[in-house]
Amino acid sequence: MFREALEEVVRGTEGGIAALIMGFDGIAVDHYVRDDGAIDVDTIGMEYSVVLKDIQKAADMLEAGATQEVAVRAERMTTVMRLINEQYFVALAIAPTGNVGRGRYLLRTRVSAMREALE
Amino acid sequence: MFREALEEVVRGTEGGIAALIMGFDGIAVDHYVRDDGAIDVDTIGMEYSVVLKDIQKAADMLEAGATQEVAVRAERMTTVMRLINEQYFVALAIAPTGNVGRGRYLLRTRVSAMREALE
Repeated sequence: MFREALEEVVRGTEGGIAALIMGFDGIAVDHYVRDDGAIDVDTIGMEYSVVLKDIQKAADMLEAGATQEVAVRAERMTTVMRLINEQYFVALAIAPTGNVGRGRYLLRTRVSAMREALE
Repeated sequence: MFREALEEVVRGTEGGIAALIMGFDGIAVDHYVRDDGAIDVDTIGMEYSVVLKDIQKAADMLEAGATQEVAVRAERMTTVMRLINEQYFVALAIAPTGNVGRGRYLLRTRVSAMREALE
């Protein structure tokens, strides 16, 4: 259903590896992986759905308002996650040498269409 | 002990609000707040120390390597966290209109001196 949008985001981002839309319940709605098998997308989603919930709780306590985006830079991969609504988020995995700014931009500009489609 | 370095990071970042160095046990080593009272630094630290531990676990599961930096963009505040070593991290809170790139740069360039001082 969202495969095309996810593919656009991954292929439009230099170093883009994979993208997925997932509920905070850990169930993936759709995903796209550039080189199949290189990455376990379901594992990404499930792990980060927990992290995002904690971040939302932390932001609430700080009265920082709703969390919009989280970027995790690790040695071998950067993950950018963006909230779609209270139930769903979209995540993009990028190689360390990739263009994170471009990935963030593509997610930001596509999230409202995703929100509408998920309603 | 680290007050001067933290002040430099906060004042050197357009929109910088506060910075702190904290252990993953939730105990703050030092902090600096630009306008005292505007923000509860201890709450920031304790909340995000939990989040960082979860992110580290998630990154390990993904074999993404050690987490180096996490940026959380919320409606009213962006928080950039950078790991110092396995025990400590430094966090910087920035206003939504602030210069996150500059804050990331300042943390990145100061983290090795912090690491040495904490040994």
